[in-house]
Amino acid sequence: MAAKDAARRLPIGSRIGILGGGQLGRMLAVAAGRLGMEVEIFEPASEPCAAQVATRVTRASYEDVGALRDFAARIDVATYEFENVPIGAVRVLGDLVPVRPGMRALEVSQDRIIEKDFLSGIGLATAPYVAIDDFGDLTAALGRIGAPAILKTRRFGYDGKGQTRLSDADEAPAAWETLGETPSVLEGFVAFEREISVIAARGMDGQVVAFDPGENRHEDGILRATTIPAAIPNGLAQDAVLLAGRILNALDYVGVIGVELFVTPSGLVVNEIAPRVHNSGHWTQDACLIDQFEQHVRAICGWPLGDGSRHSDAVMTNLLGEEVYAVEEMTGAAVHVYGKGTARPGRKMGHFTRLSPRG
Amino acid sequence: MAAKDAARRLPIGSRIGILGGGQLGRMLAVAAGRLGMEVEIFEPASEPCAAQVATRVTRASYEDVGALRDFAARIDVATYEFENVPIGAVRVLGDLVPVRPGMRALEVSQDRIIEKDFLSGIGLATAPYVAIDDFGDLTAALGRIGAPAILKTRRFGYDGKGQTRLSDADEAPAAWETLGETPSVLEGFVAFEREISVIAARGMDGQVVAFDPGENRHEDGILRATTIPAAIPNGLAQDAVLLAGRILNALDYVGVIGVELFVTPSGLVVNEIAPRVHNSGHWTQDACLIDQFEQHVRAICGWPLGDGSRHSDAVMTNLLGEEVYAVEEMTGAAVHVYGKGTARPGRKMGHFTRLSPRG
Repeated sequence: MAAKDAARRLPIGSRIGILGGGQLGRMLAVAAGRLGMEVEIFEPASEPCAAQVATRVTRASYEDVGALRDFAARIDVATYEFENVPIGAVRVLGDLVPVRPGMRALEVSQDRIIEKDFLSGIGLATAPYVAIDDFGDLTAALGRIGAPAILKTRRFGYDGKGQTRLSDADEAPAAWETLGETPSVLEGFVAFEREISVIAARGMDGQVVAFDPGENRHEDGILRATTIPAAIPNGLAQDAVLLAGRILNALDYVGVIGVELFVTPSGLVVNEIAPRVHNSGHWTQDACLIDQFEQHVRAICGWPLGDGSRHSDAVMTNLLGEEVYAVEEMTGAAVHVYGKGTARPGRKMGHFTRLSPRG
Repeated sequence: MAAKDAARRLPIGSRIGILGGGQLGRMLAVAAGRLGMEVEIFEPASEPCAAQVATRVTRASYEDVGALRDFAARIDVATYEFENVPIGAVRVLGDLVPVRPGMRALEVSQDRIIEKDFLSGIGLATAPYVAIDDFGDLTAALGRIGAPAILKTRRFGYDGKGQTRLSDADEAPAAWETLGETPSVLEGFVAFEREISVIAARGMDGQVVAFDPGENRHEDGILRATTIPAAIPNGLAQDAVLLAGRILNALDYVGVIGVELFVTPSGLVVNEIAPRVHNSGHWTQDACLIDQFEQHVRAICGWPLGDGSRHSDAVMTNLLGEEVYAVEEMTGAAVHVYGKGTARPGRKMGHFTRLSPRG
């Protein structure tokens, strides 16, 4: 139990601490401000883009216990914008202030084996998977799962980083070397028709709500666009939402979660979960009364969750690298620029959303 | 001509200076951030609520020429959130950096006589009005205009402040004393059916766009609620938009303007204009693809104006004083809390907007 009272609803004017100062922290800060909250960003890197719209920023290492304690003393609740936040930092904060979502969500989402064991354990389908600790495990696993397959590091993967695809068992030595001979998971290839995701939220009172599932298109492992609604039958959309709710309840979760799913001929397969606001939920900013960022802030502050129904259909497109400069000419889209310094190739610099009347 | 090139389009990452750190500056800052701009607030008062979401804040007096010059050196364009910004401060900035909207808009809107002369001069209807410099003027004007009438200070009025109503000519001495025996204007009472407002914008290239007119309800001189669409015939709504465009063009205006209008049996009468984003345009945040705040930022940065069409009907309601705490229970409205310190009675602390499908 945290030192500060974990059960009370945080009133207007409370102070939210966010670990991580990227675009998700930035958009969380804006939503928190809309609810009258003050925001402090904790970020080791210089000039985090979230700091431009936050009340305060602490620039310190996640290993700096003193800085973490000072940060905790200035805030009423802590959250994070990325699942790879160091567990040690969360433990330091957690002794002093509520951290939401909690430790269990981080443990599950930081390790692909623990995540898949958790999902299987609550009866959800995942890709076939085998834990790989050495090269012998990999060749044995390829014998069981077959090729094509995907080798992923157990930890710290994102946006297609930390993974490589094997078309054939012959590629095992190269793949093992590519990933750095590190604890990994071999996943069987799922022959999916489409990729969808559900952005759902769970409040401190256990209330669960979800935004309508969106359909995702990836390029080179990076989300390119999300279309709402996904072109799936209503029954399948409902299944996706129920499945997300099962995950939230099993984790006794507080906040917003992103659940990536494959649609296959035999039903939904969970690809991965992200214990945070999610890129595929950015469309909610412009097509819903209350968006994923505000829903997250509401949840972690103990407020009732808001009405996330959508008033419009939408297509959200990411702007990578220098693509961001195109927004200066756009007049028919809602544009969101992240204020990052250098438009490196592939870097998420912004996104834009086009609306159309709800179909 | 300003020292910095006034004609170029400001790219992503440019720096916008805002005179005034209240809720309008705050919501401008959020919109500017969404376009990838950095924002610096200039505000004499301590802890301006806009600073919570801005990159930087200068706390200094509008008479502090050194602070104004330093501020100008750090920004690419300046704007303001209130029409009563001291002209001297704007002159200091204007020598160093573009200030948008320009000086003419401020001169017109800071003085009710100049404003009404300007409006009459471009053929628009206003309430009958007479300039009052001494008590003799007032009694003479009451003889011409009759009662009921409204006595308003020429300068520095807002939210019903600086004005008093005369039901009868006998009330002239008390009214003259109430306003502080200061240069004023006596306005004839307009028998209006409803009050509407148009929020319009003009770009650096002369392009004019307008949001759909909203219908306003005031209480005690303070805006209580705005309903969109206003319950007026389409032709009248078009007249209102054209009239706003005439004002913008006549002022060679750059930015967003709020035009308050009375609907009367004989047509539209201009109540007043505000050379800034306007409370009655807050509904655009939640019911339009691009809102009044972003439209203003687009205009002053030389970007093409965005699509401000509305996807939903809306009712925006102001939260005054302690009413703001009600948002902690609201789940079916988009809430906007301003982060101000003390919830004094009548103080604008936030607003909320409810949407309904476009009728």
